[in-house]
Amino acid sequence: MNDNTTSIDKKIISVEEAEKIILSQKRDFGAETVSFKNCLGRVLTQDIVADRDLPPFNRVAMDGIAIKYEAIEKGVETFGIKATQAAGETPIEIKTVDECIEIMTGAALHSTADTIIRYEDIEIKNSKAFLQTDDIKKGQNIHWKGSDKKQGEVLVEASSIITPSVINVAVSVGAKDLTVKKLPKVVVISTGDEVIDVDKMPSPYQIRNSNAYSIEAVLKQYSILPALLHLADDEKTIREKIKQCLNDYDVLILSGGVSMGKFDYLPKVLKELSVNKLFYKVQQRPGKPFWFGNYGSKLIFAFPGNPVSVFLCLHRYFLPWLKNCLSITSKNVYAVLDENVEFKPSLTYFLQVKLQMNEGQLLAQPIKGNGSGDFSSLTGADAFMELPFDKASFQKGEVYKLWMINQTSFS
Amino acid sequence: MNDNTTSIDKKIISVEEAEKIILSQKRDFGAETVSFKNCLGRVLTQDIVADRDLPPFNRVAMDGIAIKYEAIEKGVETFGIKATQAAGETPIEIKTVDECIEIMTGAALHSTADTIIRYEDIEIKNSKAFLQTDDIKKGQNIHWKGSDKKQGEVLVEASSIITPSVINVAVSVGAKDLTVKKLPKVVVISTGDEVIDVDKMPSPYQIRNSNAYSIEAVLKQYSILPALLHLADDEKTIREKIKQCLNDYDVLILSGGVSMGKFDYLPKVLKELSVNKLFYKVQQRPGKPFWFGNYGSKLIFAFPGNPVSVFLCLHRYFLPWLKNCLSITSKNVYAVLDENVEFKPSLTYFLQVKLQMNEGQLLAQPIKGNGSGDFSSLTGADAFMELPFDKASFQKGEVYKLWMINQTSFS
Repeated sequence: MNDNTTSIDKKIISVEEAEKIILSQKRDFGAETVSFKNCLGRVLTQDIVADRDLPPFNRVAMDGIAIKYEAIEKGVETFGIKATQAAGETPIEIKTVDECIEIMTGAALHSTADTIIRYEDIEIKNSKAFLQTDDIKKGQNIHWKGSDKKQGEVLVEASSIITPSVINVAVSVGAKDLTVKKLPKVVVISTGDEVIDVDKMPSPYQIRNSNAYSIEAVLKQYSILPALLHLADDEKTIREKIKQCLNDYDVLILSGGVSMGKFDYLPKVLKELSVNKLFYKVQQRPGKPFWFGNYGSKLIFAFPGNPVSVFLCLHRYFLPWLKNCLSITSKNVYAVLDENVEFKPSLTYFLQVKLQMNEGQLLAQPIKGNGSGDFSSLTGADAFMELPFDKASFQKGEVYKLWMINQTSFS
Repeated sequence: MNDNTTSIDKKIISVEEAEKIILSQKRDFGAETVSFKNCLGRVLTQDIVADRDLPPFNRVAMDGIAIKYEAIEKGVETFGIKATQAAGETPIEIKTVDECIEIMTGAALHSTADTIIRYEDIEIKNSKAFLQTDDIKKGQNIHWKGSDKKQGEVLVEASSIITPSVINVAVSVGAKDLTVKKLPKVVVISTGDEVIDVDKMPSPYQIRNSNAYSIEAVLKQYSILPALLHLADDEKTIREKIKQCLNDYDVLILSGGVSMGKFDYLPKVLKELSVNKLFYKVQQRPGKPFWFGNYGSKLIFAFPGNPVSVFLCLHRYFLPWLKNCLSITSKNVYAVLDENVEFKPSLTYFLQVKLQMNEGQLLAQPIKGNGSGDFSSLTGADAFMELPFDKASFQKGEVYKLWMINQTSFS
């Protein structure tokens, strides 16, 4: 690798160029049908349509009595209770103006009634209801058939993300199985003889494999269950396994193995396997030695081995790529820098920040970390703030883009 | 129920009182040990502690050669390459100032070396490294043992939520099994003869049971997998089943069955079972007829049947209660109202809003819905904005509290 140092460094590209190249590699993984029980967070490829009017009938909105409003116009104040109708029962007819039906919320109103008087406004004695108010409007306390949505109307559009309220709508119209975008098959590949699995005791010179598991955890939040693979520093094995992965998966996410070290066989192997390098190295900190390429429709995100770099590259490049493939347009999030920051190198600097809200405004407080190697500082961060490469001083009060991390439902 | 109308309505309480009563019912469900593979979003009850210094050795931070800095002081410019050391290998000693070790990122530096010169600053020929720079600082490109954290230092504190970066840290220190707070056992109970399951075809007077599934979907996001139970309008069955649930679960979440209808047996049954009513009815829209009580350590959240009310009550009361039990202090979120809103009734109004960001500020745009009955409008909302009961006019530019809904990882 050493010989190519200068030529490679010349080709270092900006964060914006890297993003553009990655987003241009949009892929469509097709569609699949999933039960409403297992589709939270997935992306619809179908509209959800009202199978009947909503509400499907003139729905009683208060417990009380159903009458003809004509009775009120005629001065009727006492109504004989003809019957009681619960929700779910067949509607009961009223024949005369001095009749009423005792009726419950959720019941379907018969066409002969048009007004509901709630219990609070009547007194019931000996099967008769006595009016206690003169404030009655025609049609009151009825949720009219089709007033929310008409049969055939689109309730949730294709390309929507399935949230709990989308599940509510789907179930309401009987859409038990939903057609959603398929997700890419991903393998997360860690490398290096110094990296051992969590089950084993590391020698003084080894570290435990944590990157693969944090990548897995992030992907799980997006319903992707990646395969995990660890490759020792053996060129032949690496070649065989990578070849297999290019065959079996849509996306290979690698951590480590792309620096300039003698035992970093990956770039060589990828070249031999005719994987097309789209870029190597991005003008950023952390995550500078980020390698990206394709092989037919397959994509290879090879991140540097440092856990903070991995985390940044995953959130700054992989997730936006995934959203783009799924046609999700998510809103950019910005915050106000809450402290002056100096960063001299001509690199886009991804500052770890903690967020606070003040009067509807998002304030970003820099995390005092120990450089990009200290992954334990990451646990206290809410986001990376993207500080552009062409400035060295960033002032309190300036607004910059955020890349949210560490989000859970509790956030 | 009718007889108690007036006395019940007198006892209607404010949103703040309801919140206070609910939060006072704090419960501790104990702790359990869970694999790091299955603990995303859970709450730690243990600290995660560094099992050794971080980094555990003087870690080489760039590929290149390791030297004694003394050599630079003595004017040495050519170094014989004694050996090559990869990451994970036993450190190799340097004996003289004109020796070097070709060394890879992640390798453990021997105590006889103190400075790394990267490949970019040397030329290698015939097993010798020729210096190409005079800008060398003692100790450069080394990530020193213990410089991030010392052995025994707390990396992640108890009470933290387990995020992907916490998993990274846990795995790094070999903490495969983590002790986390137990979650409550929850049963979601829907009621009413008019409500049928999603598998069945509703008659013209029936609706499908959607509330149970949207509650389930929200709880799943918090790692709670509730049991689901539907009760028909039969007093005896309701009594038996509720009794069983009070025995088997920590929390009963009910939807429907607490209005004033003749067939709403729930309040009666709960009373007979000696369930203690803590309040009934809250000064709010939607969700006014919300019933809350306890039975020993068990809690009963009985929400009104309307899907929008259910959604509001779940996010405004149940989730804050859950967070309180798990000792999660989450930040309040506020936004700027982006349009004038009128709401005359003396009720706290939970306005459905869509959010946008402008210069780090969160703007809330009201959703044009069709009243609280139209649950399909909920799918387009990002939050409920809490507008206080003691005002009728809410002006564009004013800041109010939000209750986020419909969040997924993609949001």
